[in-house]
Amino acid sequence: MGKNLTSREQDYSKWYNELVVKADLAENSAVRGCMVIKPYGYAIWEKMQAELDRMFKETGHQNAYFPLFVPKSLFEAEEKNAEGFAKECAVVTHYRLKTDEENKGKLIVDPAAKLEEELVVRPTSEAVIWNTYKNWIQSYRDLPILINQWANVVRWEMRTRLFLRTAEFLWQEGHTAHATRQEALAETKQMNDIYAEFVESFMATPVIKGAKTENERFAGAEETYCIEALMQDGKALQAGTSHFLGQNFAKAFDVKFATKEGGLEHVWATSWGVSTRLMGALIMTHSDDKGLVLPPKLAPIQVVIVPIYKNEEQLEQISVVANQLVKDLRANGISVKFDDRDTQKPGWKFAQYELQGVPVRLAIGPKDLEKGTVELARRDTLTKEFVEMNTVVEKVTVLMDEIQEALFTKAKNYRDEHITRVNSFDEFKEVLKKKGGFVSAHWDGTPETENKIKELTKATIRCIPFDREEEQGACVLTGNPSAGRVLFAKAY
Amino acid sequence: MGKNLTSREQDYSKWYNELVVKADLAENSAVRGCMVIKPYGYAIWEKMQAELDRMFKETGHQNAYFPLFVPKSLFEAEEKNAEGFAKECAVVTHYRLKTDEENKGKLIVDPAAKLEEELVVRPTSEAVIWNTYKNWIQSYRDLPILINQWANVVRWEMRTRLFLRTAEFLWQEGHTAHATRQEALAETKQMNDIYAEFVESFMATPVIKGAKTENERFAGAEETYCIEALMQDGKALQAGTSHFLGQNFAKAFDVKFATKEGGLEHVWATSWGVSTRLMGALIMTHSDDKGLVLPPKLAPIQVVIVPIYKNEEQLEQISVVANQLVKDLRANGISVKFDDRDTQKPGWKFAQYELQGVPVRLAIGPKDLEKGTVELARRDTLTKEFVEMNTVVEKVTVLMDEIQEALFTKAKNYRDEHITRVNSFDEFKEVLKKKGGFVSAHWDGTPETENKIKELTKATIRCIPFDREEEQGACVLTGNPSAGRVLFAKAY
Ligand SMILES: [Zn+2]
Ligand SMILES: [Zn+2]
Repeated sequence: MGKNLTSREQDYSKWYNELVVKADLAENSAVRGCMVIKPYGYAIWEKMQAELDRMFKETGHQNAYFPLFVPKSLFEAEEKNAEGFAKECAVVTHYRLKTDEENKGKLIVDPAAKLEEELVVRPTSEAVIWNTYKNWIQSYRDLPILINQWANVVRWEMRTRLFLRTAEFLWQEGHTAHATRQEALAETKQMNDIYAEFVESFMATPVIKGAKTENERFAGAEETYCIEALMQDGKALQAGTSHFLGQNFAKAFDVKFATKEGGLEHVWATSWGVSTRLMGALIMTHSDDKGLVLPPKLAPIQVVIVPIYKNEEQLEQISVVANQLVKDLRANGISVKFDDRDTQKPGWKFAQYELQGVPVRLAIGPKDLEKGTVELARRDTLTKEFVEMNTVVEKVTVLMDEIQEALFTKAKNYRDEHITRVNSFDEFKEVLKKKGGFVSAHWDGTPETENKIKELTKATIRCIPFDREEEQGACVLTGNPSAGRVLFAKAY
Repeated sequence: MGKNLTSREQDYSKWYNELVVKADLAENSAVRGCMVIKPYGYAIWEKMQAELDRMFKETGHQNAYFPLFVPKSLFEAEEKNAEGFAKECAVVTHYRLKTDEENKGKLIVDPAAKLEEELVVRPTSEAVIWNTYKNWIQSYRDLPILINQWANVVRWEMRTRLFLRTAEFLWQEGHTAHATRQEALAETKQMNDIYAEFVESFMATPVIKGAKTENERFAGAEETYCIEALMQDGKALQAGTSHFLGQNFAKAFDVKFATKEGGLEHVWATSWGVSTRLMGALIMTHSDDKGLVLPPKLAPIQVVIVPIYKNEEQLEQISVVANQLVKDLRANGISVKFDDRDTQKPGWKFAQYELQGVPVRLAIGPKDLEKGTVELARRDTLTKEFVEMNTVVEKVTVLMDEIQEALFTKAKNYRDEHITRVNSFDEFKEVLKKKGGFVSAHWDGTPETENKIKELTKATIRCIPFDREEEQGACVLTGNPSAGRVLFAKAY
């Protein structure tokens, strides 16, 4: 059973890696740090994309597409951004291969085809986009620009993990341009809220909204808002970020607009993104030792029907009932698979769908036909019950919301239990070591203290929560005055 | 009017370039040969994607994602494929930038961060995918694999044109694996048929289905099927291709499967793709000197309502009626925009929506309110009429199909009139020169003759039509025997 998944207790990290591969979500490729997203994993990502895309469009954003490559001279224009990403850039230097004269059948880079200017494979697109916006923006009438892009980006990471940290990943990046600071800040906030809404409502993953400290901000941003989730092993995961870029990119690319009043001002910017990293968050929030557990709203298959039969005649009888169920469930907007393959046994199928996190499994055998029942198994609770055939459609329909909610509640309880207020550094270290989760502590507001704590404990400040109480206190490390608690954690 | 578009007669190529930019579809970027797809252009592409994606899924295909980079050693494994693309490969050689010590604030490629093995930016993904399939396929039970990928690819072209030929473009690439030659051939055919159905039904662009000659085949394919469209300037455009790859990639990557009968055989493959090039075909099939003409099925805005008013009070009265229209039209599944911006005059708006190809424009002024009418303008015919307010929703709904059909019929008539049968090479040259379009002629079946004709006339064999008549004849150039006519044309 469970296809021999390592248990979480045994080795959480190994459990995760095995689960991702065995549940057919993704696997490593022949390219260092780059993954293959397999059809089942990609189907979940597509569902995420569809919901996010809808939310972006409902708030007035449009999609567009900008080049994969950034000429080095554009890349370096916004200095902080360039500095932040320079160390992880894949660089295209040549545009042709040629036959190796010494080894026919092999190819070598053609030295005659060296680019005059190197091209950076985008690690993020602010530079190439703001260089474009320059030509789109003359007057206040051209603002705001509210654009999103679905794309692949490359950041050369030395240590990679499927979905969580890969050299190439898929994401969306919003890039907006505004006439005022206030409007740009409101957009930054709005998009962070949209991320929170998506992650909580669809991924059933509770998040804390807050601002990053200067240390943890996006390179080139004046403010980074974020949503922070907590994984089952007590480590935090940054699920999405929204950046207020001030006028930094407008200044770097000289983007000014004529105001209504006849002035000329630099444009205000935001950018915001979520990536295939969300897949990692989804997996680690809900799954168990038997495999993936998926919230119904993101499950590619919400219900699977498995026939249990000894001969062709039985299968035929079961199929009549099953096909009707498929029809009725689909009419209720539920995605169903009737797995009548004869190449695999029911037990194999049970384990497979458990491993792949299908929320509800219905099994129908000859006895069920006699009694007019169906065996219904819930993936999240691993409970089973017999349900009257004529109530199963209603039951399953209601269950979709129930499971979605149950997963959220369970994750939220775990998360809430793992926010610990501490008032001394000893306590701080002990909580981190023994319990994990978020540690809510006073901090004196300096990058030096933050760095020191990171050095000593590997914990970073995940965010300054938006909803924190005003509370005068003493920094957990230095004892210096603090205006309120921040959340520390070890993080992915 | 028409925002000063160069006319097609004056300079077709210039007309196209201006139209693409002025209608807000795309523009050149700072990166040589790479385009920015602007929101309006991208919205059309999204509609294309949605329909194609639906058609792929209805025929059992699933989406997945494979790496952007192909290690050189994988890239060169299938020799013909590698040869075919080697000359246009962007190559990543380094993975880090560093500060230029002689010029602070500038970055240089860090020579210490040279990759051991260069990475090719995918020009197509057969190599990286078949290297993956190798691990997915052991037995006949693992077949078929029916996967599609939506992705960006890079082919370093020296002469580029927006949508038609760009260094980076967006596309989908299907990659399937089969147990038998026959099944792979059937898949190749099916996908070519799906492309034809999409291009004809949604883009309203008639196509001819056929096979490519050996010269024009995809590098590494045993057979390339294609759909060929005809543009208004008499040049052909290859709108989609579907390749039967035989066992070439299976052999290059050593992908074998255990047959039902206990044998071990190489897997059969297909690949098929359409790209943002379709945008070029769409634009050039229908548009006119006033700008873009869009078939309703792909128009991001199908109906625009423009209010004509002198004061705030009039606008308010018109808005009541317009908002009701918006509601009623949306209820019929029609996408409508009510453009009540006061920053632009009606004349400006008329020209803008004409330029952007919105199929139907409704104008409402104070007199219309009195009379209970609306002025309805059709983009394709440029005709106007007054319509009773209480019939306008029905009228517009019916018009959507009517316009879609009218565009197809018009394009098909033009295309059919531009297939000319010739029996001598003098005729061949004269038709190409004076009339353009497809030239249907006998050919002796040799690459040499095909090359010679290309050299002399710039025309290539677009395809050997599937539905050609059996007809013995003499090659138009050599007089050697021919088993049937093929279609020649100058092409994009
Ligand atoms: Zn400036
Ligand atoms: Zn072999």
